[in-house]
Amino acid sequence: MRVKLLIEYDGTKFCGWQKQRDCISVQETIERAICNVFGDALMPELYGAGRTDTGVHATGQIAHLELADEKLTEKWKNNLLRLHIAINANMLQSGARVLEATEVSDDFHARFSAKMRHYKYVILNRNVNSPIYEGRVWNIRRKIDENSMNFAAQFLRGTHNFNAFRSSQCSALNPVRTISNVEVSRKGDLIIVKISAKSFLHNQVRITVGTLKEIGIGAKNPEYIKYLLESADRTQAGPTAPAFGLYLTKIDY
Amino acid sequence: MRVKLLIEYDGTKFCGWQKQRDCISVQETIERAICNVFGDALMPELYGAGRTDTGVHATGQIAHLELADEKLTEKWKNNLLRLHIAINANMLQSGARVLEATEVSDDFHARFSAKMRHYKYVILNRNVNSPIYEGRVWNIRRKIDENSMNFAAQFLRGTHNFNAFRSSQCSALNPVRTISNVEVSRKGDLIIVKISAKSFLHNQVRITVGTLKEIGIGAKNPEYIKYLLESADRTQAGPTAPAFGLYLTKIDY
Repeated sequence: MRVKLLIEYDGTKFCGWQKQRDCISVQETIERAICNVFGDALMPELYGAGRTDTGVHATGQIAHLELADEKLTEKWKNNLLRLHIAINANMLQSGARVLEATEVSDDFHARFSAKMRHYKYVILNRNVNSPIYEGRVWNIRRKIDENSMNFAAQFLRGTHNFNAFRSSQCSALNPVRTISNVEVSRKGDLIIVKISAKSFLHNQVRITVGTLKEIGIGAKNPEYIKYLLESADRTQAGPTAPAFGLYLTKIDY
Repeated sequence: MRVKLLIEYDGTKFCGWQKQRDCISVQETIERAICNVFGDALMPELYGAGRTDTGVHATGQIAHLELADEKLTEKWKNNLLRLHIAINANMLQSGARVLEATEVSDDFHARFSAKMRHYKYVILNRNVNSPIYEGRVWNIRRKIDENSMNFAAQFLRGTHNFNAFRSSQCSALNPVRTISNVEVSRKGDLIIVKISAKSFLHNQVRITVGTLKEIGIGAKNPEYIKYLLESADRTQAGPTAPAFGLYLTKIDY
C-alpha cells in the first residue's frame, strides 16, 4: 500500500527536507517517527515532492511511502485517519507535523507525479523588525512599491531560460522552466509573492524574490527582469532572499 | 516633553506588561533600554495603555514617558524618529520592539486617555497543531461553526454587567463594561475574534473567547451568552482561552 502524507514544518528547526549527515532534516525526523509507529527495524524511505532548503517552511509539503509488509498494510489500511496522529506523537516538539495520511495508487510518486508546485514568500515592509513574525518573514526597511514588483514579475510568466535565477550550485542540466503564475500583493505591512511552476531550479524562488525586491525599492526598473532573462547571467540578478520568508504551500497532482 | 511609544511584543517571552519581581516584563525591558539610551541613573517610568497578562501578544500597545530633564528633551526633541531605533538597539533579542515614538501634549496619558482598546484572538481550527503558528494561536480540534459564534457574540454588544466574564481575581469595583464591537470570522483554518471596548475586566477577552468557543463547537447554544449576562455567574461561563492566542492590536485616543 502506498501512502501520501501532507506535511507542515517550521523550516528554522531543520537543515532542509533532505536527509544529510550530522544535521536534523525533515525527512529523517518523519522517517524515524514512522519507524517508531511501525515498530519496525527497517527505516521506511520517504519521498518528498519539494526538497526545500535549510530554513524554508512548508504548509503543504507532500511525501509518499510504501508499506511493503502485509501485516502493516492490513493494520493501517482502515486506520489511516489515525496514522498521522501516531506519527506526530512520535515527533512532538520537532517542528514538523503530518496533517493527513491518505492511500494512493501504486503509480503515485510525490516528486515525479507533481503537476504544479506553489510557493509563497512573505516580506515585512516596515522600518522595525517584528518579534511576532521573527523567523517567518524577510524584513525590508525601505518602502516597497508592490505594484512595480507585480508589473515586473509578469515578465517571468511562461517558458524561459532561468539561468540568471538559479544558484551557482544548481545541478539541473536544463535551465529552462515554465512559470505558470506569479503575483505580488500587499496586505498592510506585508508583501506577499506567490509563484507557481511544475518545477523550479535551485534557489529560483529566492533569487526571483531578491531580484523583484530590487525593483520594489526602486533600485532597478521593471525591464531589469527582461534583461536578466535575455542575458541569462546570474551575476547580474539580485541577492538570494533569505530562506525563512519562503513557504512551500501546495503541490498539485 | 511627553513621548508616546507604539510597541509590539511576543507575549511568550514575558510575564506580561507590568513590572514585577523576579520576572521579565515588557515594561521593565523597555524602561531599562530607555535608561541605557539616556545614559541616566534614574529609570524612566513607562505608562502602558493595556496591562496585558503573561503570554498575551501586542502589535499595537501604547505607552508614554516623560522627559523631565531639559538637556534630554533638547537632544531628542528633533530626533524622535531615531529614538525608537536607539531603544530597540538596547533590547535586541528581547521579544519587544518600539515601532515609533512621537511627541504628545502634556495631558496625554497612555492609559487614562484611551478611548478604545482593540483586541484580536486567533484560533487554529484543525485536527493537528501547527509548528509554524506555535505560540501564536489556540488550536481547537473540533469543527467550529464561526457563524453561530458570531451570532452569539452579538448579544455581548452594548453595556452589560460582565461579572460572568471576568477572572475571580479581577479587582474592578464595577463589573459593567461596554462592548462597542465584536465579530467572529473564518479565513481558511483560522477563526478570528475581534473585540473592542473602552476598557475590559481582567481576563474578559479570554473568557469571552473560551465561552464563544463552546458555542462554536456546538456544546452550548447562542442563548447561553444571554443567560450568562443575566446570571452574572462566572462559574457558569466557558474556560479562559489561553493567553498566546490573544493580541492587543490598537488603542484609540
